[in-house]
Amino acid sequence: MQDTATTIAIGPDPQAPRLLEKAVVGAGAQVGELAAADAMIWTGTPGDFPAALPAGVRWVQLPAAGVEDFFEAGVFATHPDVLFTSAAGAFAHSVAEHALMLLLAGVRYLPEHLRASTWQQREFFPHVGSLRGKTVTIVGAGGIGRALIPMLTPLGANVIAVNRSGRPVTGDGIPAGVETVPADQLGRVWSHTDHVVVAAPATPRTRHLIGADELARLRPSSWVINVARGSLIDTDALVEALSRGAIGGAGLDVTEPEPLPDGHPLWSLPNAIITPHDSNPPQLRLAAFADHVGANVARFVAGEPLAAVIEPQRGY
Amino acid sequence: MQDTATTIAIGPDPQAPRLLEKAVVGAGAQVGELAAADAMIWTGTPGDFPAALPAGVRWVQLPAAGVEDFFEAGVFATHPDVLFTSAAGAFAHSVAEHALMLLLAGVRYLPEHLRASTWQQREFFPHVGSLRGKTVTIVGAGGIGRALIPMLTPLGANVIAVNRSGRPVTGDGIPAGVETVPADQLGRVWSHTDHVVVAAPATPRTRHLIGADELARLRPSSWVINVARGSLIDTDALVEALSRGAIGGAGLDVTEPEPLPDGHPLWSLPNAIITPHDSNPPQLRLAAFADHVGANVARFVAGEPLAAVIEPQRGY
Repeated sequence: MQDTATTIAIGPDPQAPRLLEKAVVGAGAQVGELAAADAMIWTGTPGDFPAALPAGVRWVQLPAAGVEDFFEAGVFATHPDVLFTSAAGAFAHSVAEHALMLLLAGVRYLPEHLRASTWQQREFFPHVGSLRGKTVTIVGAGGIGRALIPMLTPLGANVIAVNRSGRPVTGDGIPAGVETVPADQLGRVWSHTDHVVVAAPATPRTRHLIGADELARLRPSSWVINVARGSLIDTDALVEALSRGAIGGAGLDVTEPEPLPDGHPLWSLPNAIITPHDSNPPQLRLAAFADHVGANVARFVAGEPLAAVIEPQRGY
Repeated sequence: MQDTATTIAIGPDPQAPRLLEKAVVGAGAQVGELAAADAMIWTGTPGDFPAALPAGVRWVQLPAAGVEDFFEAGVFATHPDVLFTSAAGAFAHSVAEHALMLLLAGVRYLPEHLRASTWQQREFFPHVGSLRGKTVTIVGAGGIGRALIPMLTPLGANVIAVNRSGRPVTGDGIPAGVETVPADQLGRVWSHTDHVVVAAPATPRTRHLIGADELARLRPSSWVINVARGSLIDTDALVEALSRGAIGGAGLDVTEPEPLPDGHPLWSLPNAIITPHDSNPPQLRLAAFADHVGANVARFVAGEPLAAVIEPQRGY
């Protein structure tokens, strides 16, 4: 009987992480030698990438979300007949979950609760909020923003997604009713925004996207969450708004400057939650990559279109 | 032209809360006098309930989830031809959201973050977890448990629901694949449980449901969340497990004793989060009731079955 199972090689480490092997097998393929493989999962650097691949290898899964280094190393040009996929989107989940955690902790008044050492129900009652019926504006609808939407909607939150084009955001678990607003019309969302999650890339255009003007248009109960890059928020304006209680608070996984220096006012403001850019810790990354690999291997086995296909002619 | 809109009276306060009026109108009905009403939203006590209702009133929505007091006052017996609905399920959302917040804050190591006043990325990295791929056992699949399930599944968590019958849990947003286990087989879930949320009623059978044995079978990374009643957990055993680091931590909105007295060890354990039974504060309750009213009025207008129908012959 001939073995007809799809064979996936994992390289370059001959001792492939167990999680990746499990992902491949769980998706209905087998792990095998590169010489006999239909596809390859690559966990190494561009510099170590094979100069030549066996003719049977039709697909290569790369380990990074951004693959500029592989472009620069000429990997795509060297293998024009191979379909490459990146890990774009694979690492967004943990960051989105972190953003949700920061937002919920803020809205439900957790920082003050954690400082308490006595039962203060009546004092705390008025400060405990909910996301139900509230509008959360997510600035940036890339992987993180899109991963966050299906986490927010079951909480009864209304989501406004802000992206460059204003083209309706779609994806797994994203309800049809999500309002999408183009970035150049960001100004018109503030009047009906309760909370803001910043999840946009750092570019010259997005620098200090949230500044004194934007903060002034939010509410005394509004939380501002940043899981993108510190430069998107004007830190001085934020400290000022937090100090005055002009907004409810800020949950920041990224800061400007970063690392946040000792003695910075954000460390001592009671309505600021600082996490030191640890929303996507190393031990979660392999598991996330394994999930991505499993999903893509299952598609490959089924002959379906793969996720995160790299289009070398477009440059990403 | 005759007015054919469905008319809903709101009583007994002639100044009905605006939120309720909005809910009625938003659901396609109009607010009007009791004499001309098709249905009534009741916000008062059983003692104030009208001895007689106009013949046009076919449905009455009561303001409480538990309606024992209305039974005792004879309200249902006095109005045998009227369909009554309770607010059962209406108040579960806020408690479920609170449970999610406590669980996420625990799993992502927020308490230690909030105590920090210096950037400790490398120190914190190993302690930041995720719910993705983790199994959360929800003990009690009533309103709170059922509201929590659709909040957990988009995070990639596997949910085990524990109820008395073991009959598969169903409801809005509950995926078909949720495993349901009868309470008398609770013992077999621990080996594959990562985190526990206690959301069952307090009865003699559920007293100290989580004790030393159960805690011993959890993991050093497990969080135990209680949003039900303090008596469901053996507090001494919990303190012992938390002190030894035998489990990751505990998030408690309810305690035994309650209120938790000053100086109790739970106040100072770094892996305990205490919120003083404030997961469903008064200001959120009216909004939740209004949502329930809106949904039921919409069903009434459409001639569809109402939610939370009281069956007087069954006693609830």
